[in-house]
Order: sequence, then C-alpha cells, then structure tokens
Amino acid sequence: MKDIKFKGIIAYPITPFDENEKVDIPLYKELLERLIVAGSHAVAPLGSTGVMPYLNDEEKLAITKATVEQVKGRVPILVGVSNLTTERTIYHAKAAEKEGADAVMIIPMSYWKLSDDEIVKHYEAVANEISIPIMAYNNPATAGIDMSPKLLKRLLEIPNVTMIKESTGDVQRMHYLKKELGDDVAFYNGSNPLALSAFAAGATGWCTAAPNLIPELNIALYDAVQKNDLNEAQKLFYKQINLLKFIVEKGLPRAIKAGLNFQGINGGQLRKPLQPLASEEVKQLEEILSSLQ
Amino acid sequence: MKDIKFKGIIAYPITPFDENEKVDIPLYKELLERLIVAGSHAVAPLGSTGVMPYLNDEEKLAITKATVEQVKGRVPILVGVSNLTTERTIYHAKAAEKEGADAVMIIPMSYWKLSDDEIVKHYEAVANEISIPIMAYNNPATAGIDMSPKLLKRLLEIPNVTMIKESTGDVQRMHYLKKELGDDVAFYNGSNPLALSAFAAGATGWCTAAPNLIPELNIALYDAVQKNDLNEAQKLFYKQINLLKFIVEKGLPRAIKAGLNFQGINGGQLRKPLQPLASEEVKQLEEILSSLQ
Amino acid sequence: MKDIKFKGIIAYPITPFDENEKVDIPLYKELLERLIVAGSHAVAPLGSTGVMPYLNDEEKLAITKATVEQVKGRVPILVGVSNLTTERTIYHAKAAEKEGADAVMIIPMSYWKLSDDEIVKHYEAVANEISIPIMAYNNPATAGIDMSPKLLKRLLEIPNVTMIKESTGDVQRMHYLKKELGDDVAFYNGSNPLALSAFAAGATGWCTAAPNLIPELNIALYDAVQKNDLNEAQKLFYKQINLLKFIVEKGLPRAIKAGLNFQGINGGQLRKPLQPLASEEVKQLEEILSSLQ
Amino acid sequence: MKDIKFKGIIAYPITPFDENEKVDIPLYKELLERLIVAGSHAVAPLGSTGVMPYLNDEEKLAITKATVEQVKGRVPILVGVSNLTTERTIYHAKAAEKEGADAVMIIPMSYWKLSDDEIVKHYEAVANEISIPIMAYNNPATAGIDMSPKLLKRLLEIPNVTMIKESTGDVQRMHYLKKELGDDVAFYNGSNPLALSAFAAGATGWCTAAPNLIPELNIALYDAVQKNDLNEAQKLFYKQINLLKFIVEKGLPRAIKAGLNFQGINGGQLRKPLQPLASEEVKQLEEILSSLQ
Repeated sequence: MKDIKFKGIIAYPITPFDENEKVDIPLYKELLERLIVAGSHAVAPLGSTGVMPYLNDEEKLAITKATVEQVKGRVPILVGVSNLTTERTIYHAKAAEKEGADAVMIIPMSYWKLSDDEIVKHYEAVANEISIPIMAYNNPATAGIDMSPKLLKRLLEIPNVTMIKESTGDVQRMHYLKKELGDDVAFYNGSNPLALSAFAAGATGWCTAAPNLIPELNIALYDAVQKNDLNEAQKLFYKQINLLKFIVEKGLPRAIKAGLNFQGINGGQLRKPLQPLASEEVKQLEEILSSLQ
Repeated sequence: MKDIKFKGIIAYPITPFDENEKVDIPLYKELLERLIVAGSHAVAPLGSTGVMPYLNDEEKLAITKATVEQVKGRVPILVGVSNLTTERTIYHAKAAEKEGADAVMIIPMSYWKLSDDEIVKHYEAVANEISIPIMAYNNPATAGIDMSPKLLKRLLEIPNVTMIKESTGDVQRMHYLKKELGDDVAFYNGSNPLALSAFAAGATGWCTAAPNLIPELNIALYDAVQKNDLNEAQKLFYKQINLLKFIVEKGLPRAIKAGLNFQGINGGQLRKPLQPLASEEVKQLEEILSSLQ
Repeated sequence: MKDIKFKGIIAYPITPFDENEKVDIPLYKELLERLIVAGSHAVAPLGSTGVMPYLNDEEKLAITKATVEQVKGRVPILVGVSNLTTERTIYHAKAAEKEGADAVMIIPMSYWKLSDDEIVKHYEAVANEISIPIMAYNNPATAGIDMSPKLLKRLLEIPNVTMIKESTGDVQRMHYLKKELGDDVAFYNGSNPLALSAFAAGATGWCTAAPNLIPELNIALYDAVQKNDLNEAQKLFYKQINLLKFIVEKGLPRAIKAGLNFQGINGGQLRKPLQPLASEEVKQLEEILSSLQ
Repeated sequence: MKDIKFKGIIAYPITPFDENEKVDIPLYKELLERLIVAGSHAVAPLGSTGVMPYLNDEEKLAITKATVEQVKGRVPILVGVSNLTTERTIYHAKAAEKEGADAVMIIPMSYWKLSDDEIVKHYEAVANEISIPIMAYNNPATAGIDMSPKLLKRLLEIPNVTMIKESTGDVQRMHYLKKELGDDVAFYNGSNPLALSAFAAGATGWCTAAPNLIPELNIALYDAVQKNDLNEAQKLFYKQINLLKFIVEKGLPRAIKAGLNFQGINGGQLRKPLQPLASEEVKQLEEILSSLQ
C-alpha cells in the first residue's frame, strides 16, 4: 500500500478579505489556528472553501506561506494548486512544495472540456515537476468536467498521484474506487452530506469546511467509525446533517462566514461577486447552529 | 410508531413464462419457495422484477393467489398493484387484500406526468378502499415521475400509507426521510447498489431481487448491520456489489433468469419485447457468480 | 423516395369520457369532425393526446372503428397501437389495419429499458404482421426511452417503417435525420414549441393537438412555410407560441379539455388519476385564447 | 428600440500561440484580417474561441490593442472581458472601452454558483464604470451557470446591457426572448448547430468561429434569411451543418486550428492543457472540409 499521511478530518479554511477586498493574512492565521486546536487531522488551504480561483498568484503564495508558518508541523498540509493552464498549475505546485506543503490537490479546471488524454498529460506534467504526493480531485460542479472512475484509475498510474477526492455526491463512485483499487489507494470524501455513506464505504478521510463551525461533531463521527460503532456514527451523522446540507446548498465561503459571525468570530469579508447570505438565510443557519448547542 | 411488519430482506420473485409466453404458475411457485426457504424476511410478487406491467388482469390475480397458497403464512406478503388508472389500481388493491396480502406496493405510474395533487388523490382513492397498509414506491426510472421528499411526506398523512420505498439511487433522499419523519415511518431501500449506504442511513429493509441468486450474502449483510458491525457489513457488501450492479444494469428479469440458469435452475422464458441477455453478458454474469462460490 | 401520404397538420383528437369515466364515442365523433372540417391534413386517434395507454383493448378498438366511420376517407388516418408487450402491439396493429387505418404509430413503451436490439425486434415483429406503413415515434418523456438517431436509422431499414416522429424537443435530432436520410424518409415534428424550427429544418408534417383549439393558426403556419415566406411563418408562430407552450406544460388532455370548455364546446371528462386543470391554470389559458381572437 | 450596431455574422478569432506558448500577436493580426476581408459583419476577440480565460491580464490587453489597430474601424469590435471577480471584470471592461472597443461581452463565470442577485450586482458594477454597450452572454457549458430567461430580463433593465447572446443550444430560450422582449432587445445566437433555427426565430446575429474556415457559407446563410428565402437558407444550412457540429464537438480552438492547417494557413499552437486534435479527428475534419469545396 502507498504511504498515507492524510486521514480523518481534513479541514478547509476560508480565505478572509478585509474591507477593501484584500486578503487578510492575520485573520486567516487566526481562523486556521482554530481548526488545528480543534483537533482536525489535517488542513487544506486554497480549496473551493478558500476561494482559490478568485485569488491572484501573489495572494495564493501568501496563503501558502502563512499556512506553513502557522501550522508549524502540527498537522499535514494539503495545498490547492489547480489552474486552467498547465504552466500555472506547475508554477503553484512547485511553490507549494518549496514552501513546505505535504501534498497538493489538483482539480482539472475546465473552460474547454478536456479530453481524458489532455487530463492525463496535465497531471503528468505537474507530477514530473514535484516530489510530494498529488490528490486528484473530482468535482464536476466546480470543475465543469466529470472524471470517470476509469480516468481516475489512469491517473493513479502516475507515481505521485496517490489520493483521490470524490465530490460528485454519488457514493457509487466510491464503491467503484474501493472495489477496483482495493487497498492500493486512499479515497477521500468531498461531499459533506455523504459523510456517513462515505465512511461506511471505506473512505480514508473527509475533506470538509464544516470544522470551521462544528469540529467536535465532525471528529466524533470519524471516531465512531474507527470504533466500528455504526449506531453511534448514524446518530452523530443525523445530528449534523442539516448543517452539512445548509453549507453546501448556500456555498461554503458564504455559509462559513455567516456561521462564524453567529459564533462571535470574525470571518472577514467576501470578494465580489460573492455576496453575504441574505438575512433570512442567516436566520435559518442560526436556527440550525442553535439546535446543536 | 406505526406497526412494522416488513423488515430485513424483502425478496422479489420473477414471473416465469412458458414457451408460448404464458405465465407458468407451477414454476413460479417453485421459484417463490426457494426465496422462502433461503430465509427471506418477506416476499413481494408483482414488482418490477415480476414484470407486473406486462401482465393482464387475470395473470396478476393468478400470481397473487399462487403466492398466498405457497407462502402459507410463513412470511409477510407485499403485492404490487400499481396501474396507470386509479380505477384499475383500486381493483387490484382490493383483490390483493381479499386474497390475503399483508400490504400492497403502489408506484404512481405515469404516462402523462402527474401533479402532486393528482398523486395524492390517487393514493387516497386506493387507501379508502382497503384496510391493509400501503408502501408508496418512488422510482423515477420506471414510473417516469420522481416524487419529492415533500410529496412523500404528504402521502404519509394518509392513514394506511405507512411505508416508503426509495429507489432513486440517491441516499440523500433516505437521509431526508429519516431526519424529517423520525421513527414514525419505515423507509425501505429499493436500489441494490445502495444496500450498505441505506442500512447505514437507517433503512428498515431492502427490497431486492438478489435473493433469487445470492440469498445468504443478502441476509448476512442485514445481520451484520443488526449486530452493529460496520466492518463486517462493509466486507459483505463489497463481496456482493458486482452482482448487485450487474443485475440492475442489465434489468432484473433478464439478469435473474440468466443467473438461475447458471445455477442449474429453470428460470422460464421472458415475455417479449424483453429478450434474454446476450451471450457475452451471460458470460460476464457467470464470472461474477463463480467468484462468489 | 418512399410514398408519403401524411403531411402538413396531423391533428390529434382527445378521447372524452362520460361522468362514469366511460369512453364517450358520440362525443368523440363530434370532436373528431371539428378537426376534419377545420382543414387538418390528417387525423391521429389513440395518441398521447387520446390517452391511449389509459384505455383497455375494447375501448381502443371502439375508438379506431369510430374514427374510420366518421372520417369516411376525407383525410388519412394514423392510429396509435403502442403497447408494453409485443403481442398486444401486434394485436392492435392488425386490428387497426383491418378497420381501415392508413398507417400506425408505434412508440417503444418501456417499463424495463429496452436495448436497441429489443426495440428493433419489436418493430420487426409488428411490421411482419401488417401491410400498412409504420411511423416510429420517439418521445423519451412518455416512453421512458430515447431512441438515438442511429437506432432510428436502423428502424428505417424495416420495409414498412417509413416515417419518424420526433418529440424530444431537440431540433438537432431533426437536422441529423434530414442530413443522414435525405429525401428517403419523412420526419414529423411532435414537439409543439418547435413547430417553426422543425418546418425550417424540413419537417414533412406537424403532429399536434393544437388544432382542437386553434386550427386556423396551425394551418396558416404550414401554408406560410409552403410558400417559402419565412417572415410570415415567424409572425404566425409567435402569435400561437404561448398556447403551444401552455398545452405542453399542462398536459395535452387536460389543456385541450379546458380550452374546449372555454370555447363553449363539451370536452367531456378525464379519466383518473388525471384531473382537470386548477382554476388559476384555466384562467391563464383563457387569457391566452382571448388574446388570439 | 435600442440602437443596434452588431448584426449578421460576428466572427470570433482564435488566439494563436508560438512554440513557447506565448501569444503570437503578428499571427493573430493575420488571422483577424482574414475574417475582416471575408466580409464578417463584426469581430469578437477574447471569446471562448480566443481562449480568453487561459490568458493573463497583459495578454488580454495586447489582444485588445492589436484588434483595434488591425480593424481600423472597418467593422465593429466586441471584446470579451469576463472574469471570476467583479474587480477584474471592471478592469478589463474599462481597458476595452479605452482602447476603442464598440461593446463588451460578459459571461458570469462561476466557480461558486452565483445567485441571481449576485449576477445582477456583478453586471451593474461593470455597467456603472463604462459607457459602451454590454452583451450578456449565457452559456452554462462554459460558465457553469445557466441564466434563466427571467434573469436575462432583469439584466436588460440595466441601461447599457442591450444585447443577449444565447448559447444553451435550446431554441426555446430565443423564442422566449423574442416573445417577451419584442423589438426592444437584440438577441444573438451562440450555438452553431442552431444557426438556422435561431435566424428563423428572429436572431439579430450569429456569434461564430466558423468564419475562420467557411466565411462564404456563413454569410450566404445570413443573406438568404435577409431575403426571406427559407428554402435557400435551409439548403445552405444543411451544406455547412457537419462542419458546425464538428467544431463544437471537438472544441472551437482545437478544431479551428486544425482546419486552418488543412487550408494551408498557420493557426499557431495551442496553450496546454489544450492539445491538438488526434490524427483521426483531423482526418474527419478534412473530409468535411473537402466535401465543401
């Protein structure tokens, strides 16, 4: 089996902005620290939650540096380095490795739908330039392209592509990965409402923004699965499901910011065109969070 | 909580035909007996597996009678009575009750897409004419209409609609049912490849044609869940998943018949336009079944 | 080129029911007569508009007989004979031919999704038993199966399959048929809101329930296309588009009945589970029809 | 009616790269000149065809400048300025206006799905900063979001949003726009295989990359429609349909480059991850182009 450093709850920080829509690094570090002390098993900056595609090159590097500085080796770091062009993806992957990331996450961003061959070449080109592992990330809702299980299998033939993150929301994809690839590969769940199904199906970890708001429940669910206690896991899952569904439906950056505010924590500003949740959405979120206390 | 008679493995027999495409009742009884002695917790004639929509009124009544005669009270019986018109649905529901069925299963068959109000009135009209419970069955792939969780909730307000069978293949629907309806309603999984996820989500039973071929594995999976042994359930699920996927992909009547033949059991003929599996599909099935022995 | 008898406006009558949900043959004849005297180029009983799948065998035969009696050779007759089983499809196709139909329309009704081979065998089996032409009808929304252009091409190799009715609502399908099959085959549009696009793409005819309400506009559109007057066709199309969209969205039998009532004509009753339009839908329809006067 | 400068064939140039994946401005100017002298009614740099999202800020400005220099006022210029963030969209819109563009085209690029309100605010923010007209562009396949007709109607309330480009491939959207908005707004077709349907539906223009390869046929189709000659338009459409379908299926930048090469014209290189068409795809294209000569 390939070496697995990432497992359990992989927490995704948001990227907060100041009043002028500039990235607020000090606030970012505070929010990141909360994830670490809450017991997250790993952190993943510059994901969808961290609005990576809305940042310029300098901003992405600043977030990467800040993450390494703040984490100080306490948990492994997975950095998002996806880009529309292969050249820029390589650039950011190399930068992440140089700064001290433990692995990079790459989704095949597509404006023009990429062929399977183009996707394989894209991953190969990046893999050739770095030594740390790559998590191939499938999420048609944001990438605009759906990587078939067959294509994911091809990607896993590239030596340092060792992890798959599945966010289609279809648990059958995970069944396929587990059945076809057995113990040779680790797959991660990126669909919050599938948390229970994915762990039941054998997911190694859960990539989630939820620990920004409810880290105890997220970690307890993982622990119950580790203890082979399905009844407890089911109970914990149903306790948090309404929050998991809410943050996905409303968009993670918007929902996490609103939830932090409700908890008395400064979540910073969003970058336009993203706007804060409407007041009735905020109210709905507050009801969900209140019911969990 | 409403009274729950149906739970565990609810086995769906096929309807075998003779060389002239006539329903073969003696063979049907033999195949049904196999399901009972294998330990199925209930049987469900005239489902999709039993090609109910391809039978005329007399044939459906004959299957119902034969089932009651053969079962002799050993397990509960759930009879499919769905029809395009309300009048014929009532006719078959009353006949099933009179013959001794324990419950009826009704899917809102649609040529013209029915509105929510039309569906509610349809179920109400049937419910008013019988005293046994109704399982409302959601399967857009065969019914041509997808009942929203909200509509299912409305149906459950009808006194004898006490069970929901979900076959969309989306485990989120089950999460919603469990979360919204709590312990007041039993939901059943009708999507074979979701067997593990559905039990993890709290499904009361699994409506499946698989016991025609692999009853021990189906029952063992249910037992592992009952014993709160997630690891064992996962292992058993991955053992049978390829068969579960195969029978769904190829169509249950075709696949079950081919599997029975491979096991040396007469599965009878299909009624046209349904045709036997192609020889290479049969070979694929034989490989799957052989690997399970 | 194969002989083409059907062209222009092919009008679909509804099947009216009496207060006891029995087919009302005298009223049916009256409604059919309206379509003929209005100038329809052909009539098509037992289509989706005529709720064919909701009728039993005797009722279908009665409608067929009544149509032939009423038409008295004034326009060609296309009879819907589709059925889930091949045996019943043959039965109705032969009956239609015997009664005097000019052609039959067959959609591959599917509960279990049929393979391409099963569909071809189904059509071949029927074609072998009759001498009149067959219109192969593709409408995934009602049939539950979508016949690919490639499959339609295979069906056209069967000698008396000479017409294609396309109701997917995708004009590209028609482009393919026209480009691939050239002048050897006639294709018909079954999607009301595509009337203009389909004629522009070269459709031979328009299969529609709209002549029950606005025959003059339907025929005028066809005439404008025949005269190569695109500007006039466009003007006529936009005049009727709101009605065309309404009757499709609300379901043809429900919408036509409501529209007839508004025009002071008895449209009879619907058979349950189909229910009349809600009062606000009726109002919306009345506004559309009033604006056309 | 609002003033309409853009009509007819609006030609989209590709952005060619050199061997080092740098934008090749001299070659770009040559390719642009071909579009102008062929008789295109307008040109639209930095569209999907021009791989705008794969370019950095400096490259986009260079293309805009080069276009204005080369066109020298002979035809109106429509510049693509879409960006994930509102701030960058404003930046490029202002730059385009300053350089001399006649209008800008904006698609709501989405990583996180934008709400209707977010999209309106995005367009408003840009509209407030420029004086030239905006073409709102709907293309869910590339934007990741589908703007409903209702939302497009809202956008048109912004004073300088005066044009809609529809690329969903659904002609019904155009019917809606024409019917609802009447002569107050110009809508443009961005779906090549819908060229005939869209003109029949009243489209003011056709936004297309096809003039890079077959300008005469594109322009002749528009001319036939202007002359109200549907038969001729249909004939011309079917002549070019296979090419239109091919370039869309294979991706415009890849297909146009391959077609130019076949015609003996240097189309430059692609930027990775985009790769040239496979040799059998090239052969298929050559057959299509050869049949048109």
